[in-house]
This record gives sequence, C-alpha cells and structure tokens, in this order.
Amino acid sequence: MSDLDAVLARIDADLDASLERLFALLRIPSISTDSAYAAHCRAAAESLRADLASLGVGAQVREVPGAHPSVVGRIDGPAGTPHALFYGHYDVQPVDPLSLWETPPFEPRIAETPDGRKIIVARGACDDKGQVMTFVEACRAWKAVTGKLPIGITFLIEGEEENGSRGLPAFVAAIKDELAADLALVCDTGMWDPNTPAITASLRGLVYTEVVVRAADRDLHSGLFGGAAANPIHILSRIVADLHDAEGRVTLDGFYDGVAEPPEEVRERWHALGLTAEGFLGQVGLARPVGESGRMVIEQIQSRPTCDVNGIVGGYTGEGTKTVIAAEARAKISFRLVGDQDPEAVANALEAHVAARIPEDCRYELIRYKGSRAIALPYDSPALAKASQALAAEWQVEPVVIGSGGSIPIVGTFKSTLGLDSVLVGFGLDDDRVHSPNEKYDLRSFHKGIRSWARILAALGE
Amino acid sequence: MSDLDAVLARIDADLDASLERLFALLRIPSISTDSAYAAHCRAAAESLRADLASLGVGAQVREVPGAHPSVVGRIDGPAGTPHALFYGHYDVQPVDPLSLWETPPFEPRIAETPDGRKIIVARGACDDKGQVMTFVEACRAWKAVTGKLPIGITFLIEGEEENGSRGLPAFVAAIKDELAADLALVCDTGMWDPNTPAITASLRGLVYTEVVVRAADRDLHSGLFGGAAANPIHILSRIVADLHDAEGRVTLDGFYDGVAEPPEEVRERWHALGLTAEGFLGQVGLARPVGESGRMVIEQIQSRPTCDVNGIVGGYTGEGTKTVIAAEARAKISFRLVGDQDPEAVANALEAHVAARIPEDCRYELIRYKGSRAIALPYDSPALAKASQALAAEWQVEPVVIGSGGSIPIVGTFKSTLGLDSVLVGFGLDDDRVHSPNEKYDLRSFHKGIRSWARILAALGE
Repeated sequence: MSDLDAVLARIDADLDASLERLFALLRIPSISTDSAYAAHCRAAAESLRADLASLGVGAQVREVPGAHPSVVGRIDGPAGTPHALFYGHYDVQPVDPLSLWETPPFEPRIAETPDGRKIIVARGACDDKGQVMTFVEACRAWKAVTGKLPIGITFLIEGEEENGSRGLPAFVAAIKDELAADLALVCDTGMWDPNTPAITASLRGLVYTEVVVRAADRDLHSGLFGGAAANPIHILSRIVADLHDAEGRVTLDGFYDGVAEPPEEVRERWHALGLTAEGFLGQVGLARPVGESGRMVIEQIQSRPTCDVNGIVGGYTGEGTKTVIAAEARAKISFRLVGDQDPEAVANALEAHVAARIPEDCRYELIRYKGSRAIALPYDSPALAKASQALAAEWQVEPVVIGSGGSIPIVGTFKSTLGLDSVLVGFGLDDDRVHSPNEKYDLRSFHKGIRSWARILAALGE
Repeated sequence: MSDLDAVLARIDADLDASLERLFALLRIPSISTDSAYAAHCRAAAESLRADLASLGVGAQVREVPGAHPSVVGRIDGPAGTPHALFYGHYDVQPVDPLSLWETPPFEPRIAETPDGRKIIVARGACDDKGQVMTFVEACRAWKAVTGKLPIGITFLIEGEEENGSRGLPAFVAAIKDELAADLALVCDTGMWDPNTPAITASLRGLVYTEVVVRAADRDLHSGLFGGAAANPIHILSRIVADLHDAEGRVTLDGFYDGVAEPPEEVRERWHALGLTAEGFLGQVGLARPVGESGRMVIEQIQSRPTCDVNGIVGGYTGEGTKTVIAAEARAKISFRLVGDQDPEAVANALEAHVAARIPEDCRYELIRYKGSRAIALPYDSPALAKASQALAAEWQVEPVVIGSGGSIPIVGTFKSTLGLDSVLVGFGLDDDRVHSPNEKYDLRSFHKGIRSWARILAALGE
C-alpha cells in the first residue's frame, strides 16, 4: 500500500472526526464586516492556530493593523520538495435576513437534499471554513500516516476576505520573507458541476462603493412638502436605473476600457461546455439572463464586467405606512472587473455619473470601499498540470480550467508582492447558497475535497 | 367681565396645568402603524376618556373592529345652540430614525428655539395630541368658569389616523345616530405662518401602496451570479425612476384625469400670498421645487397631485460590504390626490406601470393600503365665517382660507355618512417636524390655540 493510498484510507476512516473539527470552527460567528463580531473573529483565528499547532505547524495569531488578525504558520517539507503558501479565510458573511434560515446559522448540522445528497448547513460551511478544512484535514492525514507532509507549507489564513481583505496587502508586504514560497495554493473557489472539478485561472476584480444622497435637512411630511421638496429616493433610483442601458451594458463613461475579447479557442471551449441560461439560472428560480445581450451566460458571469446594487435603503421601511419624504437614501453599488479595468477609474466614472444626477440644492457622498483589479493566471504551469492530474485521479474526470466571477484580491498581491502564481482549487457548488441564508457544503465536497488535496500534495512533492 | 373674557383669563392662569395634562398624554407611545404598540394605543384612549369624564363628558373607549379603539363621548349644550362633532386622533407616527432625536421622543420637554420661541418637543406634540388638547382645554375652561359649554359637543378621537383611519368609516356608519350633529370641528391642520391663522377648506386625497419585486428564490453571490441574474433593486429603481418625467409630472396613464384648474381668482389670491420656493423650501435646507414646472409652489403642495416614494429597502443595508444580489426589494409608494381623482384608478395605473417593468421570470406584489379621495369644503358657510371672526379676534389678523397638501380621510366620511361639513382649524407650523425626529409644537400655538377654540365655541353658540 503506497503512502498516498494509506493517507486516503485514513481520510475515509477519520471523516467523522474531521467533521467534528469543522463544526467547532463553524460554531464561531466570525463575521468580519460587522465590528460587533470582532471578538468572535479573534476566537476563530485562535481556534485555527491551535488546530495547526496540533499538526506540528508553528502557527501564530498575528495582528494585522486596522483589521482582524491572520493566522500564520510554517512547516517544512522534505529536502528538495517545493514550498507552498496556502491561503484561505476564516471570516464569514453576515447572516441577514436571519428569518430565512431554517436553523441558526452558527449551529452546523448535517441535512439531506431532496435528491439524497448529504450537506453541511451553516454560515461558512463552504465559504470558506469548509474549504480551508479540506486542506487542513489533508495535511493532518499525511502527518498522521507518514509523520510529515509531502511538501513544505506556509499557512496564511486571514479574517478580512469578506471585507475586501482590509490591511492584508500591507501585512503580506511586511512579512514578505516569512511568506517566501514557490507557489501559492488557494482554496476558495468552486467545482464546474457536482461531478467535475475545476481549477480557476482567472478572477474578476471588484470595486465596492456606497452612494448616499441627501436632500432636505430632516425627514419631511409628504403631504405638506410632497410636490415641492426633492425626494432622495427618487434621485437615487434614477442614478441606479441609469447604470445599465437597454442592452444590459453598464453606461459609465469608459467602463469597458481595458476589457478584451477572449481568444476564439477559449470562446469555443466555453461554448463546448454547453452552459445554458436555463441550466445556470434555473437552479435559483430564474430563466432569462439580464447581462449584455449577445453574450453566452458563461461570458456574462466570468469574462465580462458587471454592476450590481447590493443594497438600498431610505425612508420608512417598517410595518404599515408612514407618509414621509426621507432626508437621505443610500445604495451599496459594486462592480466586477475583468482584463485591465482600473478600479479607481471605474469609481471615478461612477462619481461623475452620480454627480450629474444630483440637483444643485441636494448633496451626495461616495464611500469607496477597497477595490481590486482582475487577475489572470497561467493556464499551463507545471503546478497546475500536477494539480489537474491529481484532481482527475480523484474525480475520475478531467478538471475544467475556468474563470471565476468572484474576486480574491489577495491573489494579485501574491503575484505582485511575493512573485507567486496561485493554483486555485475548490469544491464549492453553484447551489451552495454562499452569502445567502442556509449556506451549505456538500459532504461529498468536503470528503473528496480532503482526498483531492491529499493527492495534490503528493503530486507537488514528486 | 364677559364669560368669554373670564374663560380666556382662566386659560392663561391654567396654562401650566394644561401643559401637564398634555405631557401625560405625550408620554404614551401610541404608534398605530406598529402592532407592537397596541397596548399603548389603548392606554392613550383610556387616558383621554378619563380626561373627558373630568369635564362631565360621558366618554367611552369604544372598540373599532380590526383597529385601535376610538374615544367617543357626548355633552349637550344650551337649548337652541348647535351641536358639533369634534374630531382628532391620539395615535402618532413611528419615531425612526430614533438616533436623530435629541431627546427621547416620548419624554416631552419645553425647549427654546434660536429665535427665542418656547416649543414643546415630543412625538405627537403637534400631530395630533397637542392640537386635540387645545380643544379639550378650551372646553375645560368653559366648564370651569360657566359650568357648561357654549354648544353641545360629541367627541370622536380615533387611534388610526396615521394608519389610514383603518376601520373608522365603518365604525362611523355603525354609530351614525350617536354622532348626529350640525357640523364637524377638526383640529389636525396648520397655520399659514406663525402669526397668521388658517382655515383649511380643501384636502388632498391619498393612495398608499407598497411594491415588492422578487427575482431569484434566494439571495445570490453577486460575484458568481452578477451579470446573469436579475437584480430586483435594479428593477425597482427603474419602476421608481419612471414614475416622473423630466417636467416633474407623474407618468401613470390617466393620472391627471379629474384634476381641474382652480378658478383664476383663487390662483390670484394664492399668488398674492407671495409664497416663494426659497421661502417654503429654505426652512428645510432646500431651494429648488421639484414639482411640475410652470406651477407656483403653493399649487405644487396644495392643488396638484403628487407621487412620493416614502421608503425603499433591499439587499444588504448594514455596516460595511456584502456582495449579494437580493431576492427581493420593496418600496412604499404614495400619491396625493386632488379634484375627482379616483384612488382605485390611480392604484390600478401604478400596478400597470409596475407590471410592464417586471421581467417575465420575476414577480411582483402590490400591497394596497387604504386610499381616500380629495375633499373640497365650502368657502362660505356661516360656521366658517364665525370661526374666521373668532380667529381674527385672537390673532389680530384675518385668517387665510387655504388648501392642505395633507389628507384627513375621515372628513370625507363625515360628509358622505353623516352629511356634515367640517371646519378645519389647527395651529401647526411648517417647521413643526411633523412625522420627523424632534417633532415640536410652539407653546404659543398651544396657548393661543386653546384661546382660539374658546372664542370659536363662543361664536358658534351665539
């Protein structure tokens, strides 16, 4: 029996204990965007540090200025093997609307889907605690069976990914030498479908802003002032409505500067994947893509830039009626970037779009949260080839190399600051309800995810 | 010394005690639109019942099916004098945003404005508890000085005015005989300016709705689904943005049906009042009217129909960022009606406007809260003439007969069900922050309001 076979057998035998360790982490409400949960974020970091220590990794909870702490730890591999920087995050998205959760978001449970799949239900089950633990458990199995890991690994598990990785680029630069490696491994992406693994080779960038429109200096009675006084909800609605044209294109000046068309062979490969709008949107109760007309849905979600309003609020939103004209209205507006789009230029174009729609006696504020450029990784690196072979061996099907609509800004920092290319492998599924109530992670993703990493570590060590 | 002079002297001497009785009522958080405050609404009704009983009025707290109770009580006047139905409401608007209140909304206090006016600060200080108590205290003074009231009065003080007077029309019809009177007196309107009293002779109608737009069957990750999945906030923003055209006119089909131009002499009288946009909007930090272009601001707020979105909410509205595409978005949309506009026709036109902007794979819901037609009262009734003389005597300036942008639906019911014309007199000011944080009522409005009602009661009894 080869070491790898023994490790895989150990993973199968140890699955219940692996789940228990994941559940312990899922019970910690480490919501990074709400400062009320700061202590819980630190507790999650401490829990991971202790877990890594049990693997013989000299891990520490490290302060990140102005942000939740990161967990950093290094373990060497056999001489002559490469050293990898593993990245994941322990922070999770907020849980609202809480009323839509079938069970409390931080009380993880095993459930079964109508089609008989076993799933892990909790906030963070997939994004990213479940994914991080597939890697940690793979390392644990190697350590238990062989007393060592196939390659050296430096762990960097942050607590600000859902908050724009606030402070992390500076932190990475500050501890550059500690993070030196041959490549980066990132586990925060998805499968192509429940039976087809994927390696993500491109990531969309992100610009996240909040627009505040202010009119009168107080809330007004719509009966007394309606018809004369400016209504910030009307102004904000105009700003939002004008963000897209009838063809689904974003109207901001220069928005598509730096957006390149993919090579024809890439478009053909995507086309061959046969992703239909009905298939992709049908899983969430929709049917018709709203993106740029004339584009394949896979382009709309992977290779084209987009704009979405993530939240809007103004005036009276409680039960019943209130005849008020609000003093202000707010919208959180974000953009997904591709190619060479410049986040700052996009934010500037949005500000011009907003300013042009504000009456002269009203005011606006544009809050700019952290933005990031899109990233393209080599499709043909030796590490990617080894990971691909390992995934094929585990899933018995060739992995698909895809782009991701999501953003993992730190991957750009790894390239620019550490000179590292990243290999992005993950086991999330489109129906995982990431960022939504009742987030889940298939038990199969967790189990075969651990086995996949065990195989990838072996392949990289050869 | 005439009875009236003695009553006025008594009012002046008793002002502090009158304030104490008002404060006791203001301390009760009788918010009608939020069912969590139902017990407080009942407590406010009970408090008024007890107060009226102390005046010798046989008052009762009466159940109104499906609504907060009303206070009903009758006291007869001298033989040969007319009998009046007095109407007011004890319920108040919600207090959010609570953070903008300088002191707790249900802890009434006396404050002073920068220009030295003494004001009563609390939710309901003006609308409508303060106004109701000007009438009650006038009756108290007459009873104390002469042992009787100059005319007979039936009190009807409801608890649903801020909630569309839910259930009241049916209740009025059910106790029609008890409410029989010669005229109705209503104290829920404002002055023309701090020195000029007003009698309101027309009221705009109201249609209040809530539009809910639903897209995917769950919240989605904007990185994974953005560019393909419909965003209900975008759809709702389009619906709102399209409600008005570039000239500030409402775009709904047939919206202006039944809207008549006022007689030229009325327009000239309004013009003579010299209300400027700067003067009216300047008090709330605005300068430019947004209503129909080419209209005087007094038309925009009194004689023209309007549309305002009173609240909007969707997606993530908490601290920081969340990259989500919401499953639904909601907006509370209301219309002020004039002339013969039909509330149901307007609501139907809104539904058509919404339905035309909903993608075929998305859904909408239109919640219709109670609506009411506009009301026009005679400018030349004997009762109005007597009230006008009484107000002129108290304020030493001729009162202005105006229209109100606000709605008091029950006035229409008094006409249609009881055959009563109403005389609407009130002492609110444009800067009272009605429906807003830090609502106030000038102490002078309260004091001279009581004196004004004492004079009006005397005039009606002659």
